[in-house]
Amino acid sequence: MSNRVYNFNPGPAALPLQVLETIKAEMLDYRGTGMSVLEMSHRSKPFESIVNEAVARTKRLLNLGDDFHVVFIQGGASLQFSMIPMNLSVEERPLDYVNTGTWSTKAIKEAKALGKSVRVVASSEDENFSHIPKGIKVNPDSAYLHLTSNNTIKGTQYHAFPESKSVPLVSDMSSDIMSRPFDARPFGLIYAGAQKNIGPSGSAMVLIRKDMLERVPENLPAMLKYTSFVKENSLYNTPSCFVIYVIGLVLQWIEETIGGLDKMAAINREKADLLYGTIDRGGFYRGTAKKDSRSLMNVTFRLPSEALEARFVSEAQKEGLSGLKGHRSVGGCRASIYNAVGMDAVKTLADFMVAFEKKAG
Amino acid sequence: MSNRVYNFNPGPAALPLQVLETIKAEMLDYRGTGMSVLEMSHRSKPFESIVNEAVARTKRLLNLGDDFHVVFIQGGASLQFSMIPMNLSVEERPLDYVNTGTWSTKAIKEAKALGKSVRVVASSEDENFSHIPKGIKVNPDSAYLHLTSNNTIKGTQYHAFPESKSVPLVSDMSSDIMSRPFDARPFGLIYAGAQKNIGPSGSAMVLIRKDMLERVPENLPAMLKYTSFVKENSLYNTPSCFVIYVIGLVLQWIEETIGGLDKMAAINREKADLLYGTIDRGGFYRGTAKKDSRSLMNVTFRLPSEALEARFVSEAQKEGLSGLKGHRSVGGCRASIYNAVGMDAVKTLADFMVAFEKKAG
Repeated sequence: MSNRVYNFNPGPAALPLQVLETIKAEMLDYRGTGMSVLEMSHRSKPFESIVNEAVARTKRLLNLGDDFHVVFIQGGASLQFSMIPMNLSVEERPLDYVNTGTWSTKAIKEAKALGKSVRVVASSEDENFSHIPKGIKVNPDSAYLHLTSNNTIKGTQYHAFPESKSVPLVSDMSSDIMSRPFDARPFGLIYAGAQKNIGPSGSAMVLIRKDMLERVPENLPAMLKYTSFVKENSLYNTPSCFVIYVIGLVLQWIEETIGGLDKMAAINREKADLLYGTIDRGGFYRGTAKKDSRSLMNVTFRLPSEALEARFVSEAQKEGLSGLKGHRSVGGCRASIYNAVGMDAVKTLADFMVAFEKKAG
Repeated sequence: MSNRVYNFNPGPAALPLQVLETIKAEMLDYRGTGMSVLEMSHRSKPFESIVNEAVARTKRLLNLGDDFHVVFIQGGASLQFSMIPMNLSVEERPLDYVNTGTWSTKAIKEAKALGKSVRVVASSEDENFSHIPKGIKVNPDSAYLHLTSNNTIKGTQYHAFPESKSVPLVSDMSSDIMSRPFDARPFGLIYAGAQKNIGPSGSAMVLIRKDMLERVPENLPAMLKYTSFVKENSLYNTPSCFVIYVIGLVLQWIEETIGGLDKMAAINREKADLLYGTIDRGGFYRGTAKKDSRSLMNVTFRLPSEALEARFVSEAQKEGLSGLKGHRSVGGCRASIYNAVGMDAVKTLADFMVAFEKKAG
């Protein structure tokens, strides 16, 4: 498709072309059912298979044990900011949070708004969130330790998670889930808005360790209780069916076309290395995240002036490189190179960066 | 498309073929943007236009004044069951509900679970929810009067709404929104899961009258406050972008292809008349809703025996008539004939019913 741009959007973001082509091919008749997946009952056998397959693929890809449930909940990561403290609090045990930027800050704010006892145990705010704090303190009395595995706005990412011992980790992995393998066992709960690495917007994927379900209070609204979703295999009410279908297709692509998370991670590393190498080769581009905390998903950088940044983004757009403007809260440039952004896109961008520097530098 | 079935699903349900064809045609490249609508930033101009157009069409179709906001909220009608009492309660004013079946019952349960003072002012439970109660009492001291405009399971529908005077009506219109014109002015809030008359699953449409916003408490979680959605034009966080896009296409179809809600209502009336006429012509089929409360959206009926019902559903399926089984909680048969189910589908069903009766009756 020569009219498709290279899409570096931060989310909603690029999807594998193969997935879009499948959606297109199946749009009027989902696999001989005589109807679109958009028209199919969520209680039908074909849709049940869609959910079950997406769950099974998630478990295989992340190597999850039987002690993990996988559910799909509407409302994005933002609703999870409230659901987590509502569901996973334990009396007289404070909720610990690491603050690494905008999304952590919002998660902390929502927990506090519920009147919970919240402790910020580490933060890189005093250094403009340019890195992931080191030596994060784990308090054995806390109900959980919450962290944001990847900061899309500042371009930082955890490359190892804190040793939390008996304290369950809880993580927002919206922007790097399925981008690399990791050990899920220390996590009590992992959540991810789908629209970056695993699908379109409209559903969060939530992984919950079974012991966490014992914490869920009886008196919460049904739609805000993890147990409602777990008991009914994400079908307590009508879920975001189409989004779950696309998530399934993306997971199939990771598993069968790419070949799993080790291979996905290697490709992602190669993509990021090429861009960071291009940034580091001279003084024209300047990476904004500290090197030990650089994200493999969101490569943030500045040019010598805001005028050059604006020109860079606009000339790139003309060359079919889209979505390179930094987040409105920080400015600069950002290339989001999630799973579905191919090496061809990243090479084209690196070449463009070199050419732009020659011309403007 | 000869391989498409006639789809009588109760929801998710049939969509206009024209809408599905547009989605298909635009899947890889949304109107020259070089990307799929699934890959597009919710903060981009093209997506802003999608939201604004869906809102404008809603206002035009329902003839809403400037005192109404239109927002899109994830979580379906089920989350609204909780958000409404959370947001619209007024101190010392009870919440009044009419109980006309499963969905009303759930709405009542969620309001009670929040500890609210709930009054059920009318109910048809003692007659198996086979009709809409008459002479519903409106208490001037109530914060609102909640009703479910159409009961998908029992096949009943309000053909007029109670005179509520200063008490705002609140209605779940999931299964009949945009099927007929009505006067929205007495309503403080109207909500509808999209997956029956206006789109696929994954978003509720919520219409809120401006004076209701004054009731919203400050201390609610951001994602559960109507004001968050109103202030940010449904973009407080990433919404269910694709669903909003499809809703826009369905509304465009109603407005431009059908010609508005008066015409839509006439077609719906004609479809329902044909089916109810077929049911009433002899003693073989028996409508389960009382005649004055019959739904134009969900035609529920029984056959002389459960064995015949099973055979009816299975033979219909073989003839390409899908989704005719009654809700698992009540049995029997049900033909859901929402907006997108055409007269051709209904005629084919009526002919099948006559032929089946001849053969089996």
